[in-house]
Amino acid sequence: MENRIENRMKETLPAKFYTDPKYFTEELEQFYFKRWICVGRTEQIGKPGSYFLAEIGGESIIVTRSLEGKIHAFFNVCRHRGTRLCDKESGSFNGRIACPYHSWTYGLDGRLVGAPHMADVVGFSMDNYSLHAVNCDTWDGHIFLDISKAAGKLQDQLGPLQEKFRAWRSEDLLIGKRIAYTVKANWKLIIQNYSECLHCPVIHPGLKKLTHYLSGDNEPLSPHYLGGSMDLNEGVVTMTATGKTDRQIFPHLSAEQRRHVYYYWVLPNLLLSFHPDYVMTHTLWPRSADVTEVICEWHFHPDEFKRADFNCEDAVDFWDAVNKEDWHVSELSQLGIQSRVYSPGPYSHRETLLHGLDSILTGGR
Amino acid sequence: MENRIENRMKETLPAKFYTDPKYFTEELEQFYFKRWICVGRTEQIGKPGSYFLAEIGGESIIVTRSLEGKIHAFFNVCRHRGTRLCDKESGSFNGRIACPYHSWTYGLDGRLVGAPHMADVVGFSMDNYSLHAVNCDTWDGHIFLDISKAAGKLQDQLGPLQEKFRAWRSEDLLIGKRIAYTVKANWKLIIQNYSECLHCPVIHPGLKKLTHYLSGDNEPLSPHYLGGSMDLNEGVVTMTATGKTDRQIFPHLSAEQRRHVYYYWVLPNLLLSFHPDYVMTHTLWPRSADVTEVICEWHFHPDEFKRADFNCEDAVDFWDAVNKEDWHVSELSQLGIQSRVYSPGPYSHRETLLHGLDSILTGGR
Amino acid sequence: MENRIENRMKETLPAKFYTDPKYFTEELEQFYFKRWICVGRTEQIGKPGSYFLAEIGGESIIVTRSLEGKIHAFFNVCRHRGTRLCDKESGSFNGRIACPYHSWTYGLDGRLVGAPHMADVVGFSMDNYSLHAVNCDTWDGHIFLDISKAAGKLQDQLGPLQEKFRAWRSEDLLIGKRIAYTVKANWKLIIQNYSECLHCPVIHPGLKKLTHYLSGDNEPLSPHYLGGSMDLNEGVVTMTATGKTDRQIFPHLSAEQRRHVYYYWVLPNLLLSFHPDYVMTHTLWPRSADVTEVICEWHFHPDEFKRADFNCEDAVDFWDAVNKEDWHVSELSQLGIQSRVYSPGPYSHRETLLHGLDSILTGGR
Repeated sequence: MENRIENRMKETLPAKFYTDPKYFTEELEQFYFKRWICVGRTEQIGKPGSYFLAEIGGESIIVTRSLEGKIHAFFNVCRHRGTRLCDKESGSFNGRIACPYHSWTYGLDGRLVGAPHMADVVGFSMDNYSLHAVNCDTWDGHIFLDISKAAGKLQDQLGPLQEKFRAWRSEDLLIGKRIAYTVKANWKLIIQNYSECLHCPVIHPGLKKLTHYLSGDNEPLSPHYLGGSMDLNEGVVTMTATGKTDRQIFPHLSAEQRRHVYYYWVLPNLLLSFHPDYVMTHTLWPRSADVTEVICEWHFHPDEFKRADFNCEDAVDFWDAVNKEDWHVSELSQLGIQSRVYSPGPYSHRETLLHGLDSILTGGR
Repeated sequence: MENRIENRMKETLPAKFYTDPKYFTEELEQFYFKRWICVGRTEQIGKPGSYFLAEIGGESIIVTRSLEGKIHAFFNVCRHRGTRLCDKESGSFNGRIACPYHSWTYGLDGRLVGAPHMADVVGFSMDNYSLHAVNCDTWDGHIFLDISKAAGKLQDQLGPLQEKFRAWRSEDLLIGKRIAYTVKANWKLIIQNYSECLHCPVIHPGLKKLTHYLSGDNEPLSPHYLGGSMDLNEGVVTMTATGKTDRQIFPHLSAEQRRHVYYYWVLPNLLLSFHPDYVMTHTLWPRSADVTEVICEWHFHPDEFKRADFNCEDAVDFWDAVNKEDWHVSELSQLGIQSRVYSPGPYSHRETLLHGLDSILTGGR
Repeated sequence: MENRIENRMKETLPAKFYTDPKYFTEELEQFYFKRWICVGRTEQIGKPGSYFLAEIGGESIIVTRSLEGKIHAFFNVCRHRGTRLCDKESGSFNGRIACPYHSWTYGLDGRLVGAPHMADVVGFSMDNYSLHAVNCDTWDGHIFLDISKAAGKLQDQLGPLQEKFRAWRSEDLLIGKRIAYTVKANWKLIIQNYSECLHCPVIHPGLKKLTHYLSGDNEPLSPHYLGGSMDLNEGVVTMTATGKTDRQIFPHLSAEQRRHVYYYWVLPNLLLSFHPDYVMTHTLWPRSADVTEVICEWHFHPDEFKRADFNCEDAVDFWDAVNKEDWHVSELSQLGIQSRVYSPGPYSHRETLLHGLDSILTGGR
């Protein structure tokens, strides 16, 4: 009986979850403003005063490092007349964040420290005009923000995932390459695409030589992440066009870990792909119901960068091609789902993970 | 008395019929989704498996020919996860329509014939997942679709028009040239412009040498088409810059037919212009209240294509210039009608056809 | 007591005044359609029949001069079928305004004088189909329109301002240069930016050498204009990069007037900047809540144009740079105000004028 229910046909989501601008806005609130989202790497703000901007839901957030080395993040809005404080994507503050309009000046911790010609205004106090801060935390070198300050602890959200990939020592890795893509598809279609390999033999000719699409082994569903592994084919060392690599295999991996690739989605916007010799990350930035920006990065062991012949293009080129194949078919999905005749269709047993994923992403709505 | 009413001043439509996005959407449903619309020529899908896409109201429709030679049309939406099946404007299927995502595969008649990994899903049956079909029919080589499948018979819609231009043997003609225009005007303004020649001496300097703008002779209004003829001036053989042609006059035309050009609008989106030696067609593709794509084609007798010196540029260049003059003034109309001071203006007796046309197009609203 | 209230902290406006499309539309009605707005200079239509177009709120207005030399303005909409009559930004009518579609023809005073094939239409009278006129008036060579015809007298709106800058003889000046800018900011942010110089030392390095930012002396607020003066620094003759000029100082200026620059905002859309040797004007053309087109012109004494070595680039280059600095920071303001965390912030005593300006512009809403 139980089994029959399990086997009962599961279906894709109704169209509104991919096309309705009102639903999109609510969803952004729920998943991007009330949870921890991944915005980048600690490496991007290596020195005090260095900063980068994260943009989500029309908001610009400054992520910076104080003189004490602590990471802070603030809404990019001056408390005087609302001016956006920085408009360069990344850069370095000289110990202070100064508004380009009237020079209201803030410490790297967000406190207002200078406000010209305000001294004699009755009722004004500098203490009341700190920058609007958001919560920050890090895990394995990834910077996470909790914009609403109501998401609880990052550790609680990550749970067992925190220790799972310790062997990769991700916090030490360095960015070798970063590519930004604009994908004309709902962000959930990108996650669904990432979460099944039934499509692999159809659209990824380069992939099937390296891993068999039926070799996937999924973890039981968690409300905070979703993932599994795939077996590297015999003779394949890592995911590159040749299946070979000049890079060192990460030193602490177990024999088991060396024979697999691990694909994990950390809700809502981080995709982690662990390879024997590199880690690939995608962060997803929904721009509208039907447009998502995707930042893909390839991270390598620091020793690799010391080699005169360091070259990461084999890993980059391989996945850049696969990425583009995935974005294209995700865009086709978006187009078809927008049709008046689209209705939920049946999932195969190779796509059961997606039904669970749909449940998480729609919260039962 | 009757005559006084007939002579009473008729006026153009209120602005909302040209500018209101909500009205536009309703109108598209009524005229493009619940009637037969012309989408192309049988020649475009000469062989089994060849196809082209028609796009209307955000929907993409696949028009193809089965192995038995029958024309079929389907919504371009896979029944599995909704993926758009084809994204190239035209091409050829190799006996099957395969989804680019997970290889669900359909016959050219739309039946699902392959669905990987679905065999053991309880409750799933291939019979329930044919492509969503729309009705197809042809007349004189033109392919018509009835998307709602509720439009009745094409023959009933065409009525007496079906036999009227038999002498041109349009089903045998071949496309010599195709030009696509984007016109920033409501589609009804383009039909109104096509339906009167009071503007001809003002904006078409090239036209008045060939036909006199007052020579028009209109048929009584039908709910399905509207048209009339104009006399070719003495010494003028056809509509080209010189009034001459190297092409053969169509062999079955009567003496009367050789001395006229016939302009017919077949509701909602086909304009037919019969000349002694070629047929010009326009199909109209409303994109928004104020944007219409227009596909103009010039069709010639098959024998013409066998001539070493075949050249259709005289007919094409002539009408391309006239088209552009018409689109420009239609765009000016759209702009003016959008003004707060626009109100219905009076039609002259040379524009009475337009009042009837307005009635048909607005259905008394 | 009075003084304490005066000193109480004043704050910037809530975000909706800068971001809400609905509020924007209402505001445009109130300030641009129900008041006199400045659209250009009499010099632009020096001869009878010459014309230019003004575009506001989606409306196109023809401004022209009749054979008797009187200035007229009309909605650019033919009374026949609503066609926009002219689509070139400026030009010359040959004594008549003829519709490009069916040649309905109007006098330069807007009366319908020709309507082909309308003579026998029962109920039609040419008298009923004049162009829709709007009120026109001029002051100091500036052309003003009252589109609603309900704005009262221009003189009443201008009040004491009319005589204030008589010494510049602005009606005689000629345009030396015109630059159009598209600014991604609400039009009120541009006026606020124009109305305080607290930002000058921060963003205008070139300005502070010429005038001290604290030297401003503001007039008491009027409901129709707002302005004040700034002192030229010692040794500075006018606003150019060097502070010098080859042009003659305007001959009728007082000693006092020669030592100042006067900045006046005439509601809603004219900024007047009087210099000892030139007058700069900005007209503001709101396109949406967050986009404004700005036309900046530099006007010089007619005698200057007679000089073989006339060159106005020193004045133009100086202000073009300052303009761009102002537009950039106004765009940053727009971006920050759009944030969810933006809330009204405190004005300093150097920005008190802005609080009054905000009151005028929001009418207590």
